[in-house]
Amino acid sequence: MRQDVRPIAPSVIDDAVLAALEEDGAYNDVTTLAVVHTGAWGRGTFLAKQEGVIAGLGVAAAAMTALSDEVSFDAAVQDGDCVSDGTELAEVEGPLPALLTSERVALNFLQRMSGVATLTRAYVEAVDGTDARILDTRKTTPGLRHFERYAVRVGGGHNHRFSLADAVLIKDNHIAAAWDHGAADLGEIIAQARARAPHTARIEIEVTTQEECQEAVAGGADIILLDNMPLEEVRACALAVAGGAVLEVSGGVTLENVGAIARAGVQFISVGRLTHSAPSIDISLRIGRV
Amino acid sequence: MRQDVRPIAPSVIDDAVLAALEEDGAYNDVTTLAVVHTGAWGRGTFLAKQEGVIAGLGVAAAAMTALSDEVSFDAAVQDGDCVSDGTELAEVEGPLPALLTSERVALNFLQRMSGVATLTRAYVEAVDGTDARILDTRKTTPGLRHFERYAVRVGGGHNHRFSLADAVLIKDNHIAAAWDHGAADLGEIIAQARARAPHTARIEIEVTTQEECQEAVAGGADIILLDNMPLEEVRACALAVAGGAVLEVSGGVTLENVGAIARAGVQFISVGRLTHSAPSIDISLRIGRV
Amino acid sequence: MRQDVRPIAPSVIDDAVLAALEEDGAYNDVTTLAVVHTGAWGRGTFLAKQEGVIAGLGVAAAAMTALSDEVSFDAAVQDGDCVSDGTELAEVEGPLPALLTSERVALNFLQRMSGVATLTRAYVEAVDGTDARILDTRKTTPGLRHFERYAVRVGGGHNHRFSLADAVLIKDNHIAAAWDHGAADLGEIIAQARARAPHTARIEIEVTTQEECQEAVAGGADIILLDNMPLEEVRACALAVAGGAVLEVSGGVTLENVGAIARAGVQFISVGRLTHSAPSIDISLRIGRV
Amino acid sequence: MRQDVRPIAPSVIDDAVLAALEEDGAYNDVTTLAVVHTGAWGRGTFLAKQEGVIAGLGVAAAAMTALSDEVSFDAAVQDGDCVSDGTELAEVEGPLPALLTSERVALNFLQRMSGVATLTRAYVEAVDGTDARILDTRKTTPGLRHFERYAVRVGGGHNHRFSLADAVLIKDNHIAAAWDHGAADLGEIIAQARARAPHTARIEIEVTTQEECQEAVAGGADIILLDNMPLEEVRACALAVAGGAVLEVSGGVTLENVGAIARAGVQFISVGRLTHSAPSIDISLRIGRV
Amino acid sequence: MRQDVRPIAPSVIDDAVLAALEEDGAYNDVTTLAVVHTGAWGRGTFLAKQEGVIAGLGVAAAAMTALSDEVSFDAAVQDGDCVSDGTELAEVEGPLPALLTSERVALNFLQRMSGVATLTRAYVEAVDGTDARILDTRKTTPGLRHFERYAVRVGGGHNHRFSLADAVLIKDNHIAAAWDHGAADLGEIIAQARARAPHTARIEIEVTTQEECQEAVAGGADIILLDNMPLEEVRACALAVAGGAVLEVSGGVTLENVGAIARAGVQFISVGRLTHSAPSIDISLRIGRV
Amino acid sequence: MRQDVRPIAPSVIDDAVLAALEEDGAYNDVTTLAVVHTGAWGRGTFLAKQEGVIAGLGVAAAAMTALSDEVSFDAAVQDGDCVSDGTELAEVEGPLPALLTSERVALNFLQRMSGVATLTRAYVEAVDGTDARILDTRKTTPGLRHFERYAVRVGGGHNHRFSLADAVLIKDNHIAAAWDHGAADLGEIIAQARARAPHTARIEIEVTTQEECQEAVAGGADIILLDNMPLEEVRACALAVAGGAVLEVSGGVTLENVGAIARAGVQFISVGRLTHSAPSIDISLRIGRV
Repeated sequence: MRQDVRPIAPSVIDDAVLAALEEDGAYNDVTTLAVVHTGAWGRGTFLAKQEGVIAGLGVAAAAMTALSDEVSFDAAVQDGDCVSDGTELAEVEGPLPALLTSERVALNFLQRMSGVATLTRAYVEAVDGTDARILDTRKTTPGLRHFERYAVRVGGGHNHRFSLADAVLIKDNHIAAAWDHGAADLGEIIAQARARAPHTARIEIEVTTQEECQEAVAGGADIILLDNMPLEEVRACALAVAGGAVLEVSGGVTLENVGAIARAGVQFISVGRLTHSAPSIDISLRIGRV
Repeated sequence: MRQDVRPIAPSVIDDAVLAALEEDGAYNDVTTLAVVHTGAWGRGTFLAKQEGVIAGLGVAAAAMTALSDEVSFDAAVQDGDCVSDGTELAEVEGPLPALLTSERVALNFLQRMSGVATLTRAYVEAVDGTDARILDTRKTTPGLRHFERYAVRVGGGHNHRFSLADAVLIKDNHIAAAWDHGAADLGEIIAQARARAPHTARIEIEVTTQEECQEAVAGGADIILLDNMPLEEVRACALAVAGGAVLEVSGGVTLENVGAIARAGVQFISVGRLTHSAPSIDISLRIGRV
Repeated sequence: MRQDVRPIAPSVIDDAVLAALEEDGAYNDVTTLAVVHTGAWGRGTFLAKQEGVIAGLGVAAAAMTALSDEVSFDAAVQDGDCVSDGTELAEVEGPLPALLTSERVALNFLQRMSGVATLTRAYVEAVDGTDARILDTRKTTPGLRHFERYAVRVGGGHNHRFSLADAVLIKDNHIAAAWDHGAADLGEIIAQARARAPHTARIEIEVTTQEECQEAVAGGADIILLDNMPLEEVRACALAVAGGAVLEVSGGVTLENVGAIARAGVQFISVGRLTHSAPSIDISLRIGRV
Repeated sequence: MRQDVRPIAPSVIDDAVLAALEEDGAYNDVTTLAVVHTGAWGRGTFLAKQEGVIAGLGVAAAAMTALSDEVSFDAAVQDGDCVSDGTELAEVEGPLPALLTSERVALNFLQRMSGVATLTRAYVEAVDGTDARILDTRKTTPGLRHFERYAVRVGGGHNHRFSLADAVLIKDNHIAAAWDHGAADLGEIIAQARARAPHTARIEIEVTTQEECQEAVAGGADIILLDNMPLEEVRACALAVAGGAVLEVSGGVTLENVGAIARAGVQFISVGRLTHSAPSIDISLRIGRV
Repeated sequence: MRQDVRPIAPSVIDDAVLAALEEDGAYNDVTTLAVVHTGAWGRGTFLAKQEGVIAGLGVAAAAMTALSDEVSFDAAVQDGDCVSDGTELAEVEGPLPALLTSERVALNFLQRMSGVATLTRAYVEAVDGTDARILDTRKTTPGLRHFERYAVRVGGGHNHRFSLADAVLIKDNHIAAAWDHGAADLGEIIAQARARAPHTARIEIEVTTQEECQEAVAGGADIILLDNMPLEEVRACALAVAGGAVLEVSGGVTLENVGAIARAGVQFISVGRLTHSAPSIDISLRIGRV
Repeated sequence: MRQDVRPIAPSVIDDAVLAALEEDGAYNDVTTLAVVHTGAWGRGTFLAKQEGVIAGLGVAAAAMTALSDEVSFDAAVQDGDCVSDGTELAEVEGPLPALLTSERVALNFLQRMSGVATLTRAYVEAVDGTDARILDTRKTTPGLRHFERYAVRVGGGHNHRFSLADAVLIKDNHIAAAWDHGAADLGEIIAQARARAPHTARIEIEVTTQEECQEAVAGGADIILLDNMPLEEVRACALAVAGGAVLEVSGGVTLENVGAIARAGVQFISVGRLTHSAPSIDISLRIGRV
């Protein structure tokens, strides 16, 4: 893994890998027990079967070595490397039953995380040359947020807030909730949030029109989330705000339009599909006796 | 949920939902705390934003009601229903903070599970009129196997084995492991498996050529997995086997070719992408005060 | 509990109470088993034995009712009420063994939390009439952060960040770490933090002299933590900053000097001893048969 | 740690330290991540900032080394040593991010445990020259009983029962419960307890007057707890009992009166404030790059 | 359950039952799913298939009702009742799949616990008319100590210490450990234990000869455990001790000799086989549709 | 352990051993703490006290080494060895307190598992010379299924299904449930199961008469469980089936009749008492100082 990408905490990896092995019945792999000699020794190779950005080698290593201290895992590439069909990713060696039993869990993590990293890389490259950063969202797979956020970082993206506990983002539903309650305008909502939220937090608020954007700027918002706004309006907002607040775009962002959005002059673009709809990368593990 | 689809065990749902809420910092939703009055009451509507097959309403209900006993969740459709853009899926009502805080977790489950059900339904409809069944695989998201397998069932698919512990499936790596060890042919491997595996298990074995298929039949395999085999060869195998063993196809199965594969005369077609690469279905939750 | 004080999540309370009961051997209370008839019914009264602010009635209720569904707990005061020696706080009634076995755990939470609320209230009253807010710190009892932060809120204080994950606070050790590494001044450190930290976070930095304070303001800090600074210097900083950044004071804050610090013109005063050194409030539970 | 003080079980320490690090968001220390280079190496020194008895170096070591195998922790003093302002307690060295992230958890344990040990030592020294032993009570912080009892031992005190499961102590509420039920006197209650309690347990009973004390002795109590009794009465009880039962004093014990109580001739003095109200000892950790 | 037998804590039962259901794959009962209609309703009867003392009806009820709120469990007998072949023990009614899936776990607990209660009852009846009490030991099934101790109580036996934490019992290995270290005789060991053990604990010590017994009495032991001693020697010890200490016998106790041991004048007889070797009682559950 | 017996997963052993040590109060062994010097070093020998087949040495080793890294455990025999009274099984050496504290947990596992292995071996030898295999059942001790199944393997037996999740076994209660529902005969039930069960599963069905057996064969059952059938009928079924289906016998199998049943021509004989009623083997651990 590259130096500058924050890793997943080892205990987080270990817990998830052990849970996945238990889920997969690794304690009682009836096929391996029936077919392979307990004392056999094996070697295997992880191979990319298509082009993509690799993420999760450390997780795969944890899975492959979880069942036996004698298994070694040697990565041939690093997380973040772009590989092509046929690239050898890693070699494993150790007791053959352990290799066979942990194969699927290792691949399930590695393929999914590489899928996220690959899609993220595509978005990042599409905004190359601009100041915009690609962000993930909270639309992650339940239980895998640490893993998918890491894959986003590996792909060159940045992380939005980890959870509800660590940032203030006033969304449409919050505004509706406050609005009905008598708040005259966004400024009042922002002021209330500023007074009641942790003093260490910036106030981010979602708007859907140029007028709301102006209202939010006037109300003192630190960050304005332009949600599902046509490109023209995004541009108008960026001109109008002119650095008075940080702008973030979300909703309907595709590989086709992300470059134009970035060039419209916003600092952040958050993309839910990085984590909720990235297809897995095809990777195989070939194992044999030695 | 329809009568004939086996549900997920309630304790499995509850554990996963609570873990997801904790992952998402639900104990300390600083935005809701800053903007919404603790005693406010709200109502919300889950709306489909695109066409698809719904799966996971029970999980969404568990998420929405987890933070307050006062929240009610009333489904307007059933798991398995095909809905279109704009269909109302469910109504929730209760303390507004609880609704706002649990929204994302409910949607993360519901959108992903509906994505799996929708893709599965497409495969199932593509083999309509044949005897072939669409199966899932163990290529599931770590930690979510119960949920994704349920979504496959909702979509009309069937489940392959849950884990390594409950079926014998001798794959390429097992054969390589056994082969090097001196087994003369697939028959010997099958015989050894039969002798050592639980007597309640059928023996399924993976083959990649017509010759291997014949060898497996001769060796007494109960089920033969034709892996990544051209359509022509699948047809030839089906003809040659002629009911002497159950046939399953896997590898490279797409919506385009799955019908032809089914008509080739195989009983089962397993599709990894049902669970590893199904895109989420877009669903929103609109919340307001009452 | 007053409407406007955010409660502790019920599941957090339940988990802590059950763990405490297990720690205290509640499954096998050999004294109660030896002396009291299993079927006896009892009633008890929680009484304040000294003046103080009550916090934790809900936790005490959870402890008293954890061992039997038949126990009722009726609070006579609310969290946040200031009580005096002899004030009745709550009545409990139910199976006598359950009351006797859970007594100590209920009191251990209630006395400690009331101690924190009482000390906090004293600090809050000492800054009455100023704009300054009293904050807690991360110097909490391991495992009880939710409970102690709640007690601070009950006492009228505000919460600083919950954990390392939800705010950027660059302390002396961070500066030393960055400094040696070649950062020319605080401005560079702040700029680096701004670039690498979540975009939703404000940047708070600790300084110990007036010069550093100026440097931090010039460097664009959002919040400046004046650590262990003499009152005169705090005043000078407040004058110099003049609203250009938020000021927070910490270190050596006592009930004697906190009013003067507040009047010096800072917005926040964080006090470690609220949670690390608040003495418990004496509370008793008198139980008898009915 | 001195040979003769029973340590805390390592697994108990590890579990508590990991839970505390999780509570403190150590998996996502946004400040350290933003300011400090991942590969930086650091060294730090734990320094006492006031006089006191140190307890918890092993727990601090566990916290400092929990995030990285490369961190070393070298204690310069032992648990039980009395240190003064400025004494160096320990040196740590390792990856700078790990040191910065675990600092607060290490200090939170060390400061609190040292506070308990320091207060205990004061009580122990106040009864120096007598046969009386200072005991803790069950008035411990929920979740930290192992840690606070250890700190009491380090301070020279002794432990009373760990939990309700391991000793018979008939307190006022038990007597009230039994009394109403028709027990004629304490002797009957003691006899019932002896018959029903585990045969391996001594019977301890709480009394509040000299008459009750006599009644308890006559009734065959092994240990008599004189609760909140004036010094004169304690003396009278000790004379009257004359070794016929073990005497323990509790309630209203202060550093001022504990010596006189001890000289009154009782064997045990239990002090709740050792654990429920001991202020933390001020200790700092200075960290820098190397 | 009879009033005077202390029950198992409900949370202990629930945790064990849920773990057992998970161990037994109750989340995925492939047979019931394949054969029985999801909506079917059923009724069942627990029947004793041999004579014995019933214990564990509450645990069986917890197992049968764990999978569905709609299951009712109505006991026809009570724990502690002696039943014969054919006695109806309980009726269950509810969703048929839930009944079928939880059957085995309910029976596994009920049969084993009834086996322990039955064997205990036999020992208790064999000492009828004497003052001796039958005790269990720590030779319990790992994980089931609460359950087996309860069954002993149901059978009329008494519980020895729950664990190492709640009584002092100096066994042969402890004496050997201390002896080699220079202790001159049992009296020295007892004195050391008295000084270092919790003051609430009696001191019990194991001896194997009459001489050691005398030494232990002289040394002030509260309880003396006569281990594997011939009946004649037990009698001699009882005469010699003459109430000076409590006597307990263990080792080689059978239904044949336990009466004579009791009449020899000892107060306690501890029997390992109550829990380590009691055969299960045969109980069946007949289920049908309604 | 012999090469060809599948071991228990190390994590399963570790979890169970740690839970058992906690259950036994190993964190606070008041006797050892009172009598034995913390720094003492000891050595001990596990000795068989009766003839039997040893199983569980690895579990005993895990228990003995769990409390200290300095404990060594050297087995003198292997799991599966038949030993006699006096055979030395293993030597342990290490800190004396650790040895004393973990002794009982190690023995509780080892004695129980050896009891299961010994009884299994007796059954296996009783069918020597036939093709029949001895199987365990799901009548295991809750929480110990992994351990008891391993002991069965060590004894030479084979494992039936691990849980409800991994095989289809249609028992009397299932048939009653289906029957009432309108299934005309066993063939219909079998057909329905085949259609709805996982395609990887064989269909096993329980019958109690020769007629039902014929019906099951005709209906296409893969395996037929002859439950509680007289020996004559078993013989008749075996003749009639003549290899058309696999036969398994259960119910009322004793060491006296198991040989005759095997010679009747059935392939499997399942014996519940292997796990629910095997008496423990007597094993001791003698410990001393070195």
